Amino acid sequence: MPYEIKGLNEECGVFGIFNVPDAANVTYFGLHALQHRGQQGAGIVASDGQKLRQFRDRGLLSEVFSNPADLDFLKGNMAIGHVRYGTAGSDSLANVQPFLFHFQDGEIALCHNGNLTNAKTLKKRLEDSGSVFQSSSDTEVLIHLIRRKVRMPFIEALKASLNEVKGGFAFLLMTNDTLYAALDPNGFRPLVLGQMDNGSYVVASESCALDAVHAKLLRDVQPGELLIINKDGIKIDHYTTETQLAVCSMEYIYFARPDSIIHGVNIHTARKRMGMLLAKEQPAPEDADMVIGVPNSSLSAATGYAEAAGLPYEMGLIKNQYIARTFIQPTQALREQGVKMKLAAVRGVVSGKNIIVVDDSIVRGTTSRQIVQMLKEAGAKSVHMRIASPPFKYPHFYGIDISERKDLMAAKYSVSDMCKLIGADSLGFLSIPSLIKAVDMPDAGDAPNGGLTVAYFDGKYPTPLYDYENQVKEPLNVEPVEEILKKQNRGE
Amino acid sequence: MPYEIKGLNEECGVFGIFNVPDAANVTYFGLHALQHRGQQGAGIVASDGQKLRQFRDRGLLSEVFSNPADLDFLKGNMAIGHVRYGTAGSDSLANVQPFLFHFQDGEIALCHNGNLTNAKTLKKRLEDSGSVFQSSSDTEVLIHLIRRKVRMPFIEALKASLNEVKGGFAFLLMTNDTLYAALDPNGFRPLVLGQMDNGSYVVASESCALDAVHAKLLRDVQPGELLIINKDGIKIDHYTTETQLAVCSMEYIYFARPDSIIHGVNIHTARKRMGMLLAKEQPAPEDADMVIGVPNSSLSAATGYAEAAGLPYEMGLIKNQYIARTFIQPTQALREQGVKMKLAAVRGVVSGKNIIVVDDSIVRGTTSRQIVQMLKEAGAKSVHMRIASPPFKYPHFYGIDISERKDLMAAKYSVSDMCKLIGADSLGFLSIPSLIKAVDMPDAGDAPNGGLTVAYFDGKYPTPLYDYENQVKEPLNVEPVEEILKKQNRGE
Amino acid sequence: MPYEIKGLNEECGVFGIFNVPDAANVTYFGLHALQHRGQQGAGIVASDGQKLRQFRDRGLLSEVFSNPADLDFLKGNMAIGHVRYGTAGSDSLANVQPFLFHFQDGEIALCHNGNLTNAKTLKKRLEDSGSVFQSSSDTEVLIHLIRRKVRMPFIEALKASLNEVKGGFAFLLMTNDTLYAALDPNGFRPLVLGQMDNGSYVVASESCALDAVHAKLLRDVQPGELLIINKDGIKIDHYTTETQLAVCSMEYIYFARPDSIIHGVNIHTARKRMGMLLAKEQPAPEDADMVIGVPNSSLSAATGYAEAAGLPYEMGLIKNQYIARTFIQPTQALREQGVKMKLAAVRGVVSGKNIIVVDDSIVRGTTSRQIVQMLKEAGAKSVHMRIASPPFKYPHFYGIDISERKDLMAAKYSVSDMCKLIGADSLGFLSIPSLIKAVDMPDAGDAPNGGLTVAYFDGKYPTPLYDYENQVKEPLNVEPVEEILKKQNRGE
Amino acid sequence: MPYEIKGLNEECGVFGIFNVPDAANVTYFGLHALQHRGQQGAGIVASDGQKLRQFRDRGLLSEVFSNPADLDFLKGNMAIGHVRYGTAGSDSLANVQPFLFHFQDGEIALCHNGNLTNAKTLKKRLEDSGSVFQSSSDTEVLIHLIRRKVRMPFIEALKASLNEVKGGFAFLLMTNDTLYAALDPNGFRPLVLGQMDNGSYVVASESCALDAVHAKLLRDVQPGELLIINKDGIKIDHYTTETQLAVCSMEYIYFARPDSIIHGVNIHTARKRMGMLLAKEQPAPEDADMVIGVPNSSLSAATGYAEAAGLPYEMGLIKNQYIARTFIQPTQALREQGVKMKLAAVRGVVSGKNIIVVDDSIVRGTTSRQIVQMLKEAGAKSVHMRIASPPFKYPHFYGIDISERKDLMAAKYSVSDMCKLIGADSLGFLSIPSLIKAVDMPDAGDAPNGGLTVAYFDGKYPTPLYDYENQVKEPLNVEPVEEILKKQNRGE
Repeated sequence: MPYEIKGLNEECGVFGIFNVPDAANVTYFGLHALQHRGQQGAGIVASDGQKLRQFRDRGLLSEVFSNPADLDFLKGNMAIGHVRYGTAGSDSLANVQPFLFHFQDGEIALCHNGNLTNAKTLKKRLEDSGSVFQSSSDTEVLIHLIRRKVRMPFIEALKASLNEVKGGFAFLLMTNDTLYAALDPNGFRPLVLGQMDNGSYVVASESCALDAVHAKLLRDVQPGELLIINKDGIKIDHYTTETQLAVCSMEYIYFARPDSIIHGVNIHTARKRMGMLLAKEQPAPEDADMVIGVPNSSLSAATGYAEAAGLPYEMGLIKNQYIARTFIQPTQALREQGVKMKLAAVRGVVSGKNIIVVDDSIVRGTTSRQIVQMLKEAGAKSVHMRIASPPFKYPHFYGIDISERKDLMAAKYSVSDMCKLIGADSLGFLSIPSLIKAVDMPDAGDAPNGGLTVAYFDGKYPTPLYDYENQVKEPLNVEPVEEILKKQNRGE
Repeated sequence: MPYEIKGLNEECGVFGIFNVPDAANVTYFGLHALQHRGQQGAGIVASDGQKLRQFRDRGLLSEVFSNPADLDFLKGNMAIGHVRYGTAGSDSLANVQPFLFHFQDGEIALCHNGNLTNAKTLKKRLEDSGSVFQSSSDTEVLIHLIRRKVRMPFIEALKASLNEVKGGFAFLLMTNDTLYAALDPNGFRPLVLGQMDNGSYVVASESCALDAVHAKLLRDVQPGELLIINKDGIKIDHYTTETQLAVCSMEYIYFARPDSIIHGVNIHTARKRMGMLLAKEQPAPEDADMVIGVPNSSLSAATGYAEAAGLPYEMGLIKNQYIARTFIQPTQALREQGVKMKLAAVRGVVSGKNIIVVDDSIVRGTTSRQIVQMLKEAGAKSVHMRIASPPFKYPHFYGIDISERKDLMAAKYSVSDMCKLIGADSLGFLSIPSLIKAVDMPDAGDAPNGGLTVAYFDGKYPTPLYDYENQVKEPLNVEPVEEILKKQNRGE
Repeated sequence: MPYEIKGLNEECGVFGIFNVPDAANVTYFGLHALQHRGQQGAGIVASDGQKLRQFRDRGLLSEVFSNPADLDFLKGNMAIGHVRYGTAGSDSLANVQPFLFHFQDGEIALCHNGNLTNAKTLKKRLEDSGSVFQSSSDTEVLIHLIRRKVRMPFIEALKASLNEVKGGFAFLLMTNDTLYAALDPNGFRPLVLGQMDNGSYVVASESCALDAVHAKLLRDVQPGELLIINKDGIKIDHYTTETQLAVCSMEYIYFARPDSIIHGVNIHTARKRMGMLLAKEQPAPEDADMVIGVPNSSLSAATGYAEAAGLPYEMGLIKNQYIARTFIQPTQALREQGVKMKLAAVRGVVSGKNIIVVDDSIVRGTTSRQIVQMLKEAGAKSVHMRIASPPFKYPHFYGIDISERKDLMAAKYSVSDMCKLIGADSLGFLSIPSLIKAVDMPDAGDAPNGGLTVAYFDGKYPTPLYDYENQVKEPLNVEPVEEILKKQNRGE
Repeated sequence: MPYEIKGLNEECGVFGIFNVPDAANVTYFGLHALQHRGQQGAGIVASDGQKLRQFRDRGLLSEVFSNPADLDFLKGNMAIGHVRYGTAGSDSLANVQPFLFHFQDGEIALCHNGNLTNAKTLKKRLEDSGSVFQSSSDTEVLIHLIRRKVRMPFIEALKASLNEVKGGFAFLLMTNDTLYAALDPNGFRPLVLGQMDNGSYVVASESCALDAVHAKLLRDVQPGELLIINKDGIKIDHYTTETQLAVCSMEYIYFARPDSIIHGVNIHTARKRMGMLLAKEQPAPEDADMVIGVPNSSLSAATGYAEAAGLPYEMGLIKNQYIARTFIQPTQALREQGVKMKLAAVRGVVSGKNIIVVDDSIVRGTTSRQIVQMLKEAGAKSVHMRIASPPFKYPHFYGIDISERKDLMAAKYSVSDMCKLIGADSLGFLSIPSLIKAVDMPDAGDAPNGGLTVAYFDGKYPTPLYDYENQVKEPLNVEPVEEILKKQNRGE
């Protein structure tokens, strides 16, 4: 998993379906196609029209549902499901979604992909008047907001609450007879609507999940929309009209599966274009022999670069397919080898060659440095890093795990310093305009940045940051490059 | 597990300790001694003075903590732990305790043994003003009550909340620096205070857990008490003085471990006396050859009966020690054999003999009938059932799983009809006065029934029943004995 | 498991059945009743008349067959199964039985309960001419002996081979259409023949397995017999007539389940008589208050002692039912508590009392010492150990794990020294004649010692010892009692 | 795993090391890099100079050694290890290697990659004189042959035995102080010798395992060689000089990892050249829009084809990284979706396009047909299959799982019929001369076919086939193409 290698942790994937027999089974297949969005936990809640049933656990979907009886238990023709990334820890289970709330007046299941930027404030407000939160997840906030509106009908309470939460979110809710899907006012997170041959509606984080269940992609859920799906069909409602498309560019760069289509753009194609534009902006040195990609997420960009540069695309790094998720590193002395177990340089390919390595992004820089080192140990004459996205300088508050500037190498160092730190012979990034051009969303209209959020690169966030406002302003403590290099030389 | 055989499900066991190194380890050993009180789930929360850490899962304690790292993770010198019985089901995990609540102003862990009789009412009231419950457990109600008292200091809010909840309860709470233990105003559930050699205080459901960690039994926690244990030592406070001792008689009859001491009375000794008094009240027929007990919970009473009756005590039934908890019954045709896998009649002992079988109680009657059948198949000439407690006619609202009268055989049938239904040659129960005499609590003072709750036998509940009030009044639908016997003969 | 506590490791249990539908399922239930004979591994081989299929693994039967598909896989109407004790170790799986051998001319499955005294010699002879053994088990020797007789018909080769192996053995063999059962010439190990209602024959280590599958006990397999069961019915053949009944007395004392019947004697009844005779030979001191047994294997003898002594039988020790087989002992400091997790003294019963503890045997003495200590810590005024078997002085070569004299406390110390070493106030053992009298096999005829092997007590082995001959003669290195006591006082 | 998709099952991987601390740990890392050669079981035997210790189990390496204690148990500074593919089944464990044999005169561990063509004959001969085989693996034959030479010194017996076994084999043997490695006389299976910085020798199936443990590749083990490694260093001996290099071409086409180097040729590079030559021999149609590869094994060839054809290389198929090995297919109705869970077509890439799909081989043809169908469903205008190896017409007897001609599509149908059956718009294969040219082994000398075995394509086996002789001659029962197509149309 490149994600692990890099330390950028994707958020989650959601899937919901209404009106198919064995909805939980279909949801299983849909979630399977979304597994790349989260491997820490998985769950499904199904409704048979009367009662909601839940099964969830830590681990991969196939581990969670290793006992067929647990899937059979989830009876009914509607279901929502979730795969999640969660911080390692011992009781993350309370955070595995979907959540299922039993009220004396009914049941509600809820799952979520995204990050609320005012969750802390809302939680404090709710706690101050006596609310009790059981999970550390943002998701729970929504249900508390809804339930506090005690005299309001459910739909109104839901809409009002959706207007209170800020940030990036794609919520699925399910009562015993209705499925709801809501997207944040900027459409930060992807969410698509599909339809099966029998007319059933499906909602999923990515279109690859629709393909997996043979559903047709109808459209992307739009910012501010609230979809209501029940026996009366689908109603496309809005909880707000103050919207502005600003899709998370990291979905195109890194998160989404290559076969998904987000706002009309195929991910692989967008990445390949990023690689092509990168080849123009950050051309290969004259003596370059080949282009290689970092498997698996950078392969599309790397082939694009190779094509545009007129250089052969080679397999210079390979990824071991059999990485155990909980890997034992039996002795301290062999710990270092553990790193080499995920990626291997192909000596027969790179030895004696000048190499262009295309990667999708640099977060902490650790992996980049290891890759350069690995290639040089395998005999590469020179290693030129090319990154198919702009320098990642500002935290990502709308969905992923890194929200501290100090962890971002590009927040602290210039490109030339980064080049020194990772030990490459040259380093180049894609520009923001090229990123926008590579994605080229057909339905962006006149949205800024072609409908993309590029705040991670330029710091211009499309919304207020609420709880995180101060965080972007904090000064960074930057260790001099020379100091770090000295330490590295000493093997620290 | 006799519990499984009988269908009476014990509630839970709690354990808490303050001020020992590796408190979670000690808690592990304490809970191990309480495992008989619940096998469905187990958990521990520990505090290192700063932070509370939780680990819990479904299964036996040793299964939950099969990975030593999970116990190591629970750092700190104070901890609370819980073993629980939970209804089978797919996501009972949300109900596995201790619960851990993260508030923006601190953390609270909470676990509980008992049953609240007004939980439904309280939940409704709280939900009506916007509270959200995540578990189906009663336990969560307390924390909501506390947190709703937003302007009250914690201790006051806790005391006020303890006055709101009704029923049987033994609560342990832990903040980052203090351990709290509270018992219901009737002392329905057992809870003892102990002390280790180093002066550390320990609170546990039964004294056998104190023995397991080499702690000395100091005293039983008294009805209405609130114990506050922290670096200042122990403070024995009260949240109410309107108390009346009414210890659950089922603890003496059936739940507690034979080596525990509750209110000064050793359980084995009390059970043996029940057997002795039973022999006087329900004497053996003249031709009786021997007394046998139903393993394991009835062995004490059976030896008492044998001694008083002057009859040999024999091992006529043995229990297979290797019952898998999740047992496969591979084919329908062999399902019936499954029943025989828990108990076996000792043919060489019972064949051709007139047998007195002593059991501790009859709940549904199913097991009793199987035991009689098993013994007769093994050649017993006659089988006389003697029950070392009074007929169980009224539901148990203070802690266990059976709260429906229709499930209680004695609620629907006379003793002579019960005898016919289980196929015994005679049947006799202990009287309520003898039960009280057998227990003979030294510290009961002038409490009614010698400090025992005997409501399960006479219907005179020591408290209002709140949410369950109507339930005891509902008329029962009683199928005629002859109809049932006919069905049994037809093998239905 | 008292076995673990004591360190005497039972050997194995075997079960075979011919001509029932789903024979593997029936075998599962039979083995379940034999689980006390071995918990380290389990397996079944079934035949559908054409092909033998095997499934086996480490662990309890219910763990091995936790996936129903594995039992379904074992198709056919005949099967043999095995539960085994194996030395802890990392690859004991190769030793889990039944073994299945695929020859180009057919398949043979084989399992075994016992110990061959000339296995080493036979193995050497076979290896010297090129045989290769894969397991460390004795069992494999038989198949090699059979196969080396290359020109002999199978039955003849089997009989000849059974005459070559020495020691205690109960073998089950199965080809695609026939089930074979063979017992050693002394009948050291138990083996019974039963019949189901449909006429099917069943062979099992103990009669409790027959009860578990509703089969009727027909007779014990006799020394030197070879049973041949196939579609032509049963043929009771002999491979030798030079036989002499010498049933292992440890089966009566300790191994077998109380409900089993071996050579016409019910185990519980025999043990109770041992206890009664023990009370006569080693009477209780005048001031004794009660008799207690060590759970579970000594309970029968203890009740017998109590009855004969006219003393109350009490539950002074209880056994935790929830001992995990692979127990974590998280810290060195808590290791000592680990010992206390198996047994607990019932303080309320023993405190201030003079106690008679009845145990079935003393092997190393470690457990006895811990029990005395535990009871004294719980307040016992005096502890008098009474052992319902003679002093165990000579190794057991016919089936169990202890074959070194130096491990046997009674081989090195006098009874009065043993008493000092375990810290008891008095110690007494049953005499050999009383043991024989207590068992009193009806079919022993004029066999020495009433048909029992008592060599463990008097050193007069009923057969030559072959590979073990020198072992009984080796001088013992005996540490002076005073030295040991000093060490114990220093806490070593 | 493309292997699963295709049904070609690779054999095994072996790894051995002498003279490093914690040899088992190093072996673990080496085997991790060989995991692609077998995922059904794994094991390691280590020697501490005195004693050999073994641990092995079913499953992935990381699953087998999930408990660090099991690796710690394998003490010593020499070890051999094995990963294996085994036929699905319930007791494949007896076949998990390395095997460990305990003789009264010492211990031998043994593991093996390959297939013996005269194993059946040898087994019969050995069984006829009384040998007993426990596994169904060929591997065991060698140890029997050695041990039957009872009066010969070990090395001589080993050499003589290696001359008796025929077929493809790479054996590792280990006694308590010496490591042996032997390769078949044709070098069918790959085996390399490496050296660590401290001088320790390493032997492994592929050079990627040397990289993983930081060992330098010294040379390929040559046909007929017997390496003897112990404290005296390494001795490169021969058991035969009648050798002829004929490396299995499937290693280059399909089995080996792209970063391995076999006989001086990097696998990725060879595959890329196969793709390039394929583009010349089987050119793309004029209207072709792009080249796509079947992940993961065909990616190298596909980029070669794209480069040579001057067409863009696109990601038109993606592989789900999270395929559970034991996948549940909860309902029959959803079974068909199960197939789609491994591969997905990238609609956004292929829709409306004319596609060249490059795959490495066609075995049964089932996967090829599914891929064509998947791409057409995703909107591909035309799908042209190009196979980067010659038609696979003759069984592979030197190491893999397919030895029946009837399973090979190319054995039964012409290329044009195959094209119809898989539903492609055109189909083309690489020629044998081009395959040879693509590999171009530098050290092949004048070996036929450039040192490669191409018998799978032309039926000219470089050795007699012994037990399999008749199999290649059996007539094939070929169902007419039209019949199959009709069935397919009817959805059968």
